Amino acid sequence: MKYFAKIKYCGKNFCGFQVQPDKRTVQGELCDALERTLGVPCLVTGCSRTDSGVHANEFCITIDAEGATVPAEKLPVASARFLPEDISLFFAKECQKEFHPRYDVDGKEYLYRIHNSRVSDPFEVGRSWFLPRIIDSEGIEKMRLAAEKILGEHDFTSFMSAGSDTEDTVRNVRYIKISKNDDIIEIRIFADGFLYNMVRIIVGTLCEVAFGRFDADDITDIIASGNRDKAGMTAPAEGLYLNRVDYVFPKLP
Amino acid sequence: MKYFAKIKYCGKNFCGFQVQPDKRTVQGELCDALERTLGVPCLVTGCSRTDSGVHANEFCITIDAEGATVPAEKLPVASARFLPEDISLFFAKECQKEFHPRYDVDGKEYLYRIHNSRVSDPFEVGRSWFLPRIIDSEGIEKMRLAAEKILGEHDFTSFMSAGSDTEDTVRNVRYIKISKNDDIIEIRIFADGFLYNMVRIIVGTLCEVAFGRFDADDITDIIASGNRDKAGMTAPAEGLYLNRVDYVFPKLP
Repeated sequence: MKYFAKIKYCGKNFCGFQVQPDKRTVQGELCDALERTLGVPCLVTGCSRTDSGVHANEFCITIDAEGATVPAEKLPVASARFLPEDISLFFAKECQKEFHPRYDVDGKEYLYRIHNSRVSDPFEVGRSWFLPRIIDSEGIEKMRLAAEKILGEHDFTSFMSAGSDTEDTVRNVRYIKISKNDDIIEIRIFADGFLYNMVRIIVGTLCEVAFGRFDADDITDIIASGNRDKAGMTAPAEGLYLNRVDYVFPKLP
Repeated sequence: MKYFAKIKYCGKNFCGFQVQPDKRTVQGELCDALERTLGVPCLVTGCSRTDSGVHANEFCITIDAEGATVPAEKLPVASARFLPEDISLFFAKECQKEFHPRYDVDGKEYLYRIHNSRVSDPFEVGRSWFLPRIIDSEGIEKMRLAAEKILGEHDFTSFMSAGSDTEDTVRNVRYIKISKNDDIIEIRIFADGFLYNMVRIIVGTLCEVAFGRFDADDITDIIASGNRDKAGMTAPAEGLYLNRVDYVFPKLP
């Protein structure tokens, strides 16, 4: 049987999604728990790789489990007793052998949360970027104007950290939504794909727009330069959440 | 100087508010951090005692700190570097010597959070009661009807755990608000005071009303019985938050 499933995890105590020797990873913990649940060897494939400390509200996987007999709709409850408390599997269905959770992605939404307050909040530690320099409504407006310059298809080399071997650096950003409620700023970015640290560099750069280091027109120049050093800082991992994954029709799992 | 301050804490890793030898407590951590911030001995007095695992969104304290010179408005930021990440002090002002954060309370609101879902959520662990038996909108309506019977002044002995030496067991419950959004049920209870575990027993009993063990009229009988065994279960500590403290006018700190 091949299952398609949606999971959620708090990235705080994981060295990212992908299995690495001697490190605690989401894929490693999932594989152990699913083999205990299903009683057969499992191959777990993810929709993406997330870095250390990055969270997921919705992350999609497939589970190749030859000989498994647990019906897909029972998998969420059946796997719950074997999963650690920082991962949950909340949806599962059977899927076609050909479906691939990474190659068949149409686009993904990342959410970035900023706790924008002079004093930290014990319930936000590890779940948002604590930014004590206050961004007022005028700053949010500046960020929105700058974000418009990022929309559409561009070569995003300036928004990619070193250490990736990606050759095609063109991506299409479909929307960037920025809101502030009380002391939480939420930035939602949807694109057909993302380069290494792209969301975190976009967020860092937008915050520097709010602080007056850049204006909206500088964004166009930064993109055109193809030079990572021209863009702003990389916002920290703990504010980043993979939030939604859309699949190409008709390959819907 | 005597300061009045508002703090917030995640109760997960505390043995409650009140200082106890060889235990990690909120009062103990606060006192250490404030003595380092102010450079003088501090007496920290709280508005309440909370149990192990119970949280606070707003908990009020006074700090008697003879000889302290840090202006009250600077205390939140000044204390931040000495406080552990699970406590924050977000408001402070100078107050009168006579003000007492517990004796001058007019009423308090507790919030109880229930994560009502078949599968747990990694972001809710330790911050809500995970209740996998689903309460639908009809169940919520039953809980609201039963909650009405609790309102007003009653002897709440049936809703008090053993282990308290309170003699006056009459309390006045001013409101109980129950809401469900997605899979989170929130119950807000305001009263002039609370007996030991009173909120947790009220919440446990209301959930048993939703499950059909009791109906609204049974609540009246449970209160009249004065017998703890007649009421429902005690909901766990991790869903409970001290949420707001009101002071008697004109003793406002």
